[in-house]
Amino acid sequence: MGRTALCPGTFDPVTNGHLDVIERASRHFDSLVVAVLENRSKDPLFTLEERLEMLREICVDLPNVEIASFTGLLADFAKQRQIGVIVKGLRAVSDFDYELQMAQMNHRLEDIDTFFIATNPWWSFLSSSLVKEVAKFGGDVGELVPSLVHDRLREKLGAS
Amino acid sequence: MGRTALCPGTFDPVTNGHLDVIERASRHFDSLVVAVLENRSKDPLFTLEERLEMLREICVDLPNVEIASFTGLLADFAKQRQIGVIVKGLRAVSDFDYELQMAQMNHRLEDIDTFFIATNPWWSFLSSSLVKEVAKFGGDVGELVPSLVHDRLREKLGAS
Amino acid sequence: MGRTALCPGTFDPVTNGHLDVIERASRHFDSLVVAVLENRSKDPLFTLEERLEMLREICVDLPNVEIASFTGLLADFAKQRQIGVIVKGLRAVSDFDYELQMAQMNHRLEDIDTFFIATNPWWSFLSSSLVKEVAKFGGDVGELVPSLVHDRLREKLGAS
Amino acid sequence: MGRTALCPGTFDPVTNGHLDVIERASRHFDSLVVAVLENRSKDPLFTLEERLEMLREICVDLPNVEIASFTGLLADFAKQRQIGVIVKGLRAVSDFDYELQMAQMNHRLEDIDTFFIATNPWWSFLSSSLVKEVAKFGGDVGELVPSLVHDRLREKLGAS
Amino acid sequence: MGRTALCPGTFDPVTNGHLDVIERASRHFDSLVVAVLENRSKDPLFTLEERLEMLREICVDLPNVEIASFTGLLADFAKQRQIGVIVKGLRAVSDFDYELQMAQMNHRLEDIDTFFIATNPWWSFLSSSLVKEVAKFGGDVGELVPSLVHDRLREKLGAS
Amino acid sequence: MGRTALCPGTFDPVTNGHLDVIERASRHFDSLVVAVLENRSKDPLFTLEERLEMLREICVDLPNVEIASFTGLLADFAKQRQIGVIVKGLRAVSDFDYELQMAQMNHRLEDIDTFFIATNPWWSFLSSSLVKEVAKFGGDVGELVPSLVHDRLREKLGAS
Repeated sequence: MGRTALCPGTFDPVTNGHLDVIERASRHFDSLVVAVLENRSKDPLFTLEERLEMLREICVDLPNVEIASFTGLLADFAKQRQIGVIVKGLRAVSDFDYELQMAQMNHRLEDIDTFFIATNPWWSFLSSSLVKEVAKFGGDVGELVPSLVHDRLREKLGAS
Repeated sequence: MGRTALCPGTFDPVTNGHLDVIERASRHFDSLVVAVLENRSKDPLFTLEERLEMLREICVDLPNVEIASFTGLLADFAKQRQIGVIVKGLRAVSDFDYELQMAQMNHRLEDIDTFFIATNPWWSFLSSSLVKEVAKFGGDVGELVPSLVHDRLREKLGAS
Repeated sequence: MGRTALCPGTFDPVTNGHLDVIERASRHFDSLVVAVLENRSKDPLFTLEERLEMLREICVDLPNVEIASFTGLLADFAKQRQIGVIVKGLRAVSDFDYELQMAQMNHRLEDIDTFFIATNPWWSFLSSSLVKEVAKFGGDVGELVPSLVHDRLREKLGAS
Repeated sequence: MGRTALCPGTFDPVTNGHLDVIERASRHFDSLVVAVLENRSKDPLFTLEERLEMLREICVDLPNVEIASFTGLLADFAKQRQIGVIVKGLRAVSDFDYELQMAQMNHRLEDIDTFFIATNPWWSFLSSSLVKEVAKFGGDVGELVPSLVHDRLREKLGAS
Repeated sequence: MGRTALCPGTFDPVTNGHLDVIERASRHFDSLVVAVLENRSKDPLFTLEERLEMLREICVDLPNVEIASFTGLLADFAKQRQIGVIVKGLRAVSDFDYELQMAQMNHRLEDIDTFFIATNPWWSFLSSSLVKEVAKFGGDVGELVPSLVHDRLREKLGAS
Repeated sequence: MGRTALCPGTFDPVTNGHLDVIERASRHFDSLVVAVLENRSKDPLFTLEERLEMLREICVDLPNVEIASFTGLLADFAKQRQIGVIVKGLRAVSDFDYELQMAQMNHRLEDIDTFFIATNPWWSFLSSSLVKEVAKFGGDVGELVPSLVHDRLREKLGAS
C-alpha cells in the first residue's frame, strides 16, 4: 500500500497556491489524500460537493492523489485512515503560529506528525478568502486559480 | 497635476496614529487622497458621512490632502483615479503579514505599488477598535484621537 | 498587605497552561488576583459563575491566590483594586503583538505595568478555544486541562 | 529581606530604554539587582568598571536598586544570590524569540522565572549598539541616553 | 528640482531583488539616489568602485536614477543631499524588525521618513550574501542577478 | 530503493531536539540521510569525525538512518545522492524566515522540496550553541543532550 500523507483544507475554492502544495506533496509519498473539511459552522461559498468535484477534476492528472472529505477532528480522520503524517502549505509567519499550534495538538492527540512545505513565493500572497473578495468585486482572478475554478466563481458571483 | 498617492482605511474613527501617517505621507507627494472604505458588510460606529466629515475637518490645514470614499476593490479605485502608489502605516509584525498580502495582490491586479511607513512609536499601540473599546467603557481617549473625534465619541457613546 | 499582581483572562475554561502561569506568578507576589472577564458580547461555553467556581476549586491549594471577576476595562479594575502590575502568559509571537498593544494601552491609561511570563513549552500549543474544539468532537483533552475541567467539559458537551 | 528581582544586561552603555525598564521593574519588587555581564569574549566600548560606575550614578535616586556584576551563567548568579525571578525589557518580535529561549533554559536549569516588560514605545527602537554606531559617526544621541552617558560617549569617541 | 528619494544599501553585489525595488521606487519620484554604503569595517567581495560601476551599468536605462556612495550615517548623507525620504525593500519579518529600528532612528535624528516597499515575491528569498554563498560553491545564480553581475561573480570566484 | 529524505545540519553537537526530529522524520520515509555539514569557515567545538561518530552511535537503533557528511551546497549533495526532499526542524519564528529563504533557494537551484517539522515543544528552546554556552560555564545539560554527548562535552570542556 505504501506511504500515505494527508493534505487537509477547506478549499473554498482551491487556488493555484493549494495546487502547488498538492503537486509537490504528491511527489514525495506513494499516495496523498486531499481531505476537504466540511465545516458546518461556517458558511462556504461552494458546497462540499462542489469543492470535492472541482478538486477531482483539477487533480485528474495526479494518479496518486485521492480526494476525500471529513468532518470533526482531523486527527480522528487521520487515525481512521491509518495515516501518520499531514502536509500543510505555509505562506507567512502568521500562518506559522496557528499551524504550529494545530500540529502540536495533533501530535499530542494521535501521535501524528505535520510536515510544513513552503508555498511557492509566486503564490505566497494568495488565500481563498482574498480570491473570493477580489472576485466578488469583479477583479480578475484568472491567473490566481485553476481555469475551472475561475469559471465556477463567475457562475456563482455573476459575470466579470 | 503632479505625483499623487492614496492612503486607504476605514477610519472608524481616525486616530492620532492615522493622522501621523497622513501628515508624513502628504509631505512626500504633490497630493494625497485619503480614501475611506465604505464597507457595507461591517457595522461601523460612525457612518461613512461622519467619517468623511471628521477627516475633512481634521485635515483642513493640509492643503494637498483630499478626502474621498470608495467601495469595492482599492485597486479599482486607484486605477480609476490614475494613482499608482498606496501609502499604509505599519505598526507591528501582525499588521505586516496581512498588509504584505494585500500589497502583493494590488501589485498583481493593477501594477500598483504600496509604500509602508512606520507609525510613530508613540502611537504604535493604537487602533480604531481599541479606541472604541476603551471609550465604550468610559476610558479616557483624549490623548489618543484628535479632539474633534474625542467629542464625537462622547456624543455617540454617552458622557465620559 | 504586600505586593499584589493581577492575572486576567476569560478562562473559558481554565487549561493546564493557565494554571502553570497562575502558579508561577503566585510565587513572586504576596498575593495574586485572578480576574475573570465577564465578556457580555461573547457567548462563553461556561457561565461566569461556573468559570469562577472551577478556578476557586483548582486554586484551593494556592493560599495567596484570590479569584475575582470584572467587567469593562481591566485598567479600571486594576485601579479600583489599587494593583499596579498585570501578569500575562505568552505562548507565541502572534500573542505577543496583541498583548503588547494592550500592555501599552494599560500603561497609558492608568500607569499599569504588564509582566509577560513565558508559558511552559509543554503547554505552548494550548488555548481554551482549541480545547473546546477538540472536546466538542470527542477528542481526549484529559491531559490538557485540570481533571475538574475535564469532567465539566464532558457534562457540557456529552460523553467522551 | 523582601522580594528581589534580577535585571541583567551588558549595558554597553545603558540607554534611556534600559533606564525605563529598571525604573518600572524597581517599583514592583522590594529590591532589584541590576546585573552587568562581564562578557570576556566580546570587546565592549566601556570597561566593566565604567559600566558599573555609570549605572551607579544614574540609579542613585532609586534606593532599592543595587548594581552588581556577574560572569558565567545568569542562572548560577541568580541561584547564588537566591533570586527566583528575572526582569527583561522586550522591544520587538526579534528580541522575543531569543529571550524566550533563554527564559526557558533558565527555567529548566534552576527553576528561575522570567518576567518580560514591554519597553516604552518611545524607546522601542533603541539599542546600545545602535547608540554606539550613531555616536561613532558624530550623530547626536543626547536624547537617547542619560546625560552622563552622553558625556562619556563623547570622551571615548571624540567631540560631537 | 522635484521630489527625490534615497535607496541605500551595500549592494555587494546588486541582485534582481534590489533591481526590482530600484525600478519600482524610481517610478514614484522625480529622481532616486541609489546610495552605496562604503562599510570600512566589513570586508566586501566587490570594492566600492566595482559596486558603483555595476549599478551604473545596470541602471543605465533608468534616467532619473543616480548612483552615489556614502560613508558614516545615512541620516547625515540624506540631510546633506536635502532628501527627506528613504525607500527600502522588505522581504520578510526578520528584515522588518531591524529596518523599523533604523527607520525610527533616522526619523528621530533628522526627521527623515522611510517608505518600505514589498519585494516582488519571486525574489523574496534572495540576498546578496546568499547569492555569494551559492556562487562560491559553483551554484548557478544566473537567474538571480543581472547578467553583468553574473559575469563579475565568475571572474571573482572562478569558473562555474 | 524506496523514498529517501535528507536531514542536514552542523550537529555541533547533536541535541535531544535534533534527535526528536531525526526519529520522527525516519518514520515517514524508507530511508533518511542525516547530512553533517563540514563548514570550513566556522570553528566547531567537535571535529567532523567526532560529530559523525556521535550521530552513528546515537542513531544505532534507527536502521533506516544513514549518517553522512557534505561540504559545499546542500542542493548539490542532494542532487548527487538523488534525494528530492529535505526535512528540517523548526523551533521558532526566527528560524522560519531563514529556513524559508534556504528552502526557496534549494527549490530554485535543483527543484528540491523542504518539509519543515515542528520540534517537540519540550525541546523548542534548545540549540547546539546554547548547549555549548551552558556546558562551558559548568551548567548541567544532562537532560538536554543524549548521554554520549553529555560525556563528550565534559571531556572537551572539563569536569562539571
